[in-house]
Amino acid sequence: MIEYYDISGCYIIRPWAMSIWETMQKFFDAEIKKMKIQNCYFPLFVSPTVLQKEKDHIEGFAPEVAWVTKSGESDLEVPIAIRPTSETVMYPYYSKWIRGHRDLPLKLNQWCNVVRWEFSNPTPFIRSREFLWQEGHTAFATKSEADDEVLQILELYRRIYEEFLAVPVIKGKKSELEKFAGGLYTTTVEAFIPNTGRGIQGATSHCLGQNFSKMFEIIFENEKGEKAMAWQNSWAYTTRTIGVMVMVHGDDKGLVLPPRVASVQVIVVPVPYKDADTQGIFDACTATVETLCEAGICANMDSRDNYSPGWKYSHWEMKGVPLRIEIGPKDLAKNQVRAVRRDNGAKVDLPRSSLVERIKELLDEIQESLFVAAKQRRDACIQIVKTWDEFVEALGQRKMILAPWCDEEEVEKDVKARTKGEMGAAKTLCSPLEQPEIPEGTLCFASGKPAKRWSYWGRSY
Amino acid sequence: MIEYYDISGCYIIRPWAMSIWETMQKFFDAEIKKMKIQNCYFPLFVSPTVLQKEKDHIEGFAPEVAWVTKSGESDLEVPIAIRPTSETVMYPYYSKWIRGHRDLPLKLNQWCNVVRWEFSNPTPFIRSREFLWQEGHTAFATKSEADDEVLQILELYRRIYEEFLAVPVIKGKKSELEKFAGGLYTTTVEAFIPNTGRGIQGATSHCLGQNFSKMFEIIFENEKGEKAMAWQNSWAYTTRTIGVMVMVHGDDKGLVLPPRVASVQVIVVPVPYKDADTQGIFDACTATVETLCEAGICANMDSRDNYSPGWKYSHWEMKGVPLRIEIGPKDLAKNQVRAVRRDNGAKVDLPRSSLVERIKELLDEIQESLFVAAKQRRDACIQIVKTWDEFVEALGQRKMILAPWCDEEEVEKDVKARTKGEMGAAKTLCSPLEQPEIPEGTLCFASGKPAKRWSYWGRSY
Repeated sequence: MIEYYDISGCYIIRPWAMSIWETMQKFFDAEIKKMKIQNCYFPLFVSPTVLQKEKDHIEGFAPEVAWVTKSGESDLEVPIAIRPTSETVMYPYYSKWIRGHRDLPLKLNQWCNVVRWEFSNPTPFIRSREFLWQEGHTAFATKSEADDEVLQILELYRRIYEEFLAVPVIKGKKSELEKFAGGLYTTTVEAFIPNTGRGIQGATSHCLGQNFSKMFEIIFENEKGEKAMAWQNSWAYTTRTIGVMVMVHGDDKGLVLPPRVASVQVIVVPVPYKDADTQGIFDACTATVETLCEAGICANMDSRDNYSPGWKYSHWEMKGVPLRIEIGPKDLAKNQVRAVRRDNGAKVDLPRSSLVERIKELLDEIQESLFVAAKQRRDACIQIVKTWDEFVEALGQRKMILAPWCDEEEVEKDVKARTKGEMGAAKTLCSPLEQPEIPEGTLCFASGKPAKRWSYWGRSY
Repeated sequence: MIEYYDISGCYIIRPWAMSIWETMQKFFDAEIKKMKIQNCYFPLFVSPTVLQKEKDHIEGFAPEVAWVTKSGESDLEVPIAIRPTSETVMYPYYSKWIRGHRDLPLKLNQWCNVVRWEFSNPTPFIRSREFLWQEGHTAFATKSEADDEVLQILELYRRIYEEFLAVPVIKGKKSELEKFAGGLYTTTVEAFIPNTGRGIQGATSHCLGQNFSKMFEIIFENEKGEKAMAWQNSWAYTTRTIGVMVMVHGDDKGLVLPPRVASVQVIVVPVPYKDADTQGIFDACTATVETLCEAGICANMDSRDNYSPGWKYSHWEMKGVPLRIEIGPKDLAKNQVRAVRRDNGAKVDLPRSSLVERIKELLDEIQESLFVAAKQRRDACIQIVKTWDEFVEALGQRKMILAPWCDEEEVEKDVKARTKGEMGAAKTLCSPLEQPEIPEGTLCFASGKPAKRWSYWGRSY
């Protein structure tokens, strides 16, 4: 999947991981094009004056910005920043391009790299100093259009996680403390890693309100001939998606890839015996791969003669290939193949006559049961609490905690302070969009004030 | 197409240009996948020790390298370079991954941005400080495999120019002076811009030989159990392709887009008259767009009510849309549309009953005739010369000069020195792979020594 690089916090994305990224990209790119969002490309570099224009925003990013100060042997007149995100790169031009209501909506997206020179725990995919992402930046005449799009994009992010990566996520809203710096509100899809007991922000879709349009003067003349400020959104998902998938599905044997994102869905391994018809077995393997590939299934044969079948089984299990097909002398004689699932080890013999249909069914089943199993593990970690004592106990058990909350920033800060420790403090993950009922008189678990909403809490990445 | 950016030499690629890039990318990416080349992503950053490993190579790039020296307010311990190209980024890992002959060939590609902080004449698409490209990096056990791939890739580059961008190119080999720094030999597709009388390097496919594998110790055990050095290639095309297309086809009215890369192939303009059936005309326009889109033709309607049809004609001509459809009262009455070609202004009335077939034919014709016209203009600029006087005269006439050459580096340097002037010096563009015959006794136009090959000369971008 990845290789460590000689610069700390940077990683090499190898083809096995890159093809997962490409599969998601193909889906998402087609979906946003249906929404009439267009791709573009803005520069990697930002000049300092522009970068510093929106104060809250830059405060959030300033410590992580990488600065170019030299080219060749010469010092630059002014240091130039590398984009940590492109709001400030793009919006001066939105201001230029948007004059009248006919110029709206303006809906752009770019696929690119960004740099955030973080110093805390670089982790492959999850927290790296350079990463790949898409970033969408849209501007509308009205808040309700912006609000609608925020949720449409969030739904696409849910589909990436649940339908492609087989990772269950919760759609929610970030607290004021955790929202995007400079924005109005942030929606998120939140995943949870049972093994470590930590939540992880999967992807975010922000409504920026009119904060940036105020700073960057994105002003248009509306249909009545009045000046108005544009409503803006920005939204992004990153290569972190791959890391979340790895952590959610991986087991003791290694990676487990959901079929929809696996670049090899079926690996075919010949299992010859001393006195068996080796050539016949190899031919059957080759024919099987051909049949499957023709049907649009990504199949490959491991024909290496310097490794044993057993070694190959472990190798492809470690790499996470969803389905292994073995063909030995008995299979050859019976005109069948043996299929072995990566997710649960189940073995089944399939007649070669109906191979394509059965393999397709099996791959669909694996995709589905990976999701169901992950959801069961995740749901088993969710704990509803109503009091501080219950909260502390659940946190000790590394749960994803759903609690009634007064929704006050000071209380969240206080919870953070009170739970500080070796494992890291607890914070809000999100308030789920689907809110359970709050019975009259329900109190905040932390402050004892009247609860305004249910919110997920926990440690996070 | 582009917007100038507030950092000199950086440009914003707007959707109109980005979609051209995406069309080419889709084609090229599918073709290299057929060749079993896999996509990956290596970091943007290079540490200085690695960057400087191959001396000839770094000498070629050193003055243009951008250096990151700070993150936030802190100085980095060691300055870090931004990739100008990724040979030195990747090859330490090739050395790690390649151990035995079974690890070869290793064939990787990445789509990314690179930075070359040039100071000479930044020009949109043609010479920018950051640009998008693909870079392929492959390693083989034998030179003949590497040689074969160099030409396979070069053929794909030819197809991008000729089949997509309708730009004629010449396949050739670069001189020793002009080849890629650190490589063994460089092949190129060379285009020519008649208006300015300059050649332009379209894309290059390099055989690196064993130079880099020596420096980076990319050593494998061959089938006989002996240590051997890998043979390597690297190849790239950039967003410059778009700039070449713009310069080759553009006219006084603006851009001319070949249909295969146009994001809008057909623009439909309603032409209502005062007392005509305006609603009927608009409905016919909408129906026409629907019919064409369903047939896979990218069609759009310009329904804006604040611009006249005439204004719209000019607008879409300037943007280069290959075909305009006008629907007025007469067309409505006759159940036809009027189609107007961007490339030659030809008008034709088409019955709505056979619209799809006729529009498809027309788009194919436009694609073809753009190429033919561009080739005629380019060919008219090619001048064969045999003597220095003829060479100087042809250069004065801004020709692309084909001349017999002794193939000596000193002679090329001498030609450069002797032709230095306001317009820039002449240099070799390439030696065409298809060499005309060289009759016995043919002499070099510049040195008078026996000629070894025909070579194209001229001023270049």
